[in-house]
Amino acid sequence: MNQTIATQKLHRTIRAFKEGSLSEDIIKELLEVARRTATSTGLQSASIIRVKDQKKRNELAKVSGQPYVASSAELWIFIVDTYRNQRIAEQKGVNTDAGRDMDRFFQGFSDGAFMAQNVLNALESLELGGVYLGSLHNDDRRVIEILELPELTFPIIGLSFGEKDQSPQLKPKMDMSLRCFEDVYKIEKDYLEIFKDYDEEMQTYYDLRDANNRVDSFTNQIATQYANPSAKRNEILDIILEQGYTLNPRL
Amino acid sequence: MNQTIATQKLHRTIRAFKEGSLSEDIIKELLEVARRTATSTGLQSASIIRVKDQKKRNELAKVSGQPYVASSAELWIFIVDTYRNQRIAEQKGVNTDAGRDMDRFFQGFSDGAFMAQNVLNALESLELGGVYLGSLHNDDRRVIEILELPELTFPIIGLSFGEKDQSPQLKPKMDMSLRCFEDVYKIEKDYLEIFKDYDEEMQTYYDLRDANNRVDSFTNQIATQYANPSAKRNEILDIILEQGYTLNPRL
Repeated sequence: MNQTIATQKLHRTIRAFKEGSLSEDIIKELLEVARRTATSTGLQSASIIRVKDQKKRNELAKVSGQPYVASSAELWIFIVDTYRNQRIAEQKGVNTDAGRDMDRFFQGFSDGAFMAQNVLNALESLELGGVYLGSLHNDDRRVIEILELPELTFPIIGLSFGEKDQSPQLKPKMDMSLRCFEDVYKIEKDYLEIFKDYDEEMQTYYDLRDANNRVDSFTNQIATQYANPSAKRNEILDIILEQGYTLNPRL
Repeated sequence: MNQTIATQKLHRTIRAFKEGSLSEDIIKELLEVARRTATSTGLQSASIIRVKDQKKRNELAKVSGQPYVASSAELWIFIVDTYRNQRIAEQKGVNTDAGRDMDRFFQGFSDGAFMAQNVLNALESLELGGVYLGSLHNDDRRVIEILELPELTFPIIGLSFGEKDQSPQLKPKMDMSLRCFEDVYKIEKDYLEIFKDYDEEMQTYYDLRDANNRVDSFTNQIATQYANPSAKRNEILDIILEQGYTLNPRL
């Protein structure tokens, strides 16, 4: 086992960071990693907004509900970006309808997600810690406003990172036999029965976010989350439409 | 610079593989890396189909149009998987409408994309090579059929990998000053002007796929791709709907 895999196997989400900034050498390395990330059909349709302005950070922290958004050394927002290519296509005089389609959107979404994970692996290899901010989707419209995102761009995920100021336990994950199937998807009859062991494991895991509390079982967490969906988060397609993409459901 | 970052900075897509299979020890390590990947709100809503059956591989190669899909040592398809959690929520007796929403879909999509990139980084650290197969989206319905994907699952990306049988040049990528912005998105006036240098760099790059040909400039590649969109690939939202998710555009 090498350094890369050893680090990946010890991935923990870090939510507490030491004060102070990271060196520009490190930032440069991480941006080069982002740059070298695989990209769909070579189009490089994802970008990064590096948020340094404290007011903007505070506003984004409000959206996310997480204070570390305002205080981590670095805050990067990975975005779908087909704006740039759209302008190029226009300048080239070709029909640009295709630049608004959902195929293009998903290319950008994958590009940006790969880039984010690549950066996370790189920073963890430097013994820094990070946390993904899916919570920015709590209010995508506000994120778009704060970062002045033009049409044909869309926030994918945020990443707060810096020097670790906590050392959480490894969080139990479900066994890969439940998540990796051979040749065809395997449907089980009784999921509650199958998840019994994992539920027990989760209940004996202590999360540093709530240092004194045992966490709930996995299946209880699902029940709670499914019973309390966010109407606002479910407007994601509306917002994609507002950003200039063409939804094309023919059904 | 450490091993992880050194490898990431040398990422090349590998499309030619040596014959023979990978050891099950390697597979186990890669699955553990997949398992440890960050996941939105702990829900672990992505899975992997490991395709070993040669007939299925041939069928998938037809969809993708790439012969290496049939012949690489390993072929993994990363999928959105909220099927499992939906059944758990049902068994728990909660309202499961939320399990069909697009917020849930995108959580699974990010989960699976992070997982794929994590696995790609791990295998490249072992000096193996891989290629993403976005080309499977050429016909998602057929992929769903071949892999017998139930409702509330959806193919994100394929990954063919194995021992490298080629050593391509590093592909030129655009400068990160064009892709990383401070605080707000930066709109440029004249993209063709800005992309002149990169266009030249691309034209002097030789792609091993077409060993005797110089490749086209970046802006020409965009023009060509935008002028020839795939109607079928643009049915992606229809297919997501067919897979049991609820689109919610209110506009």
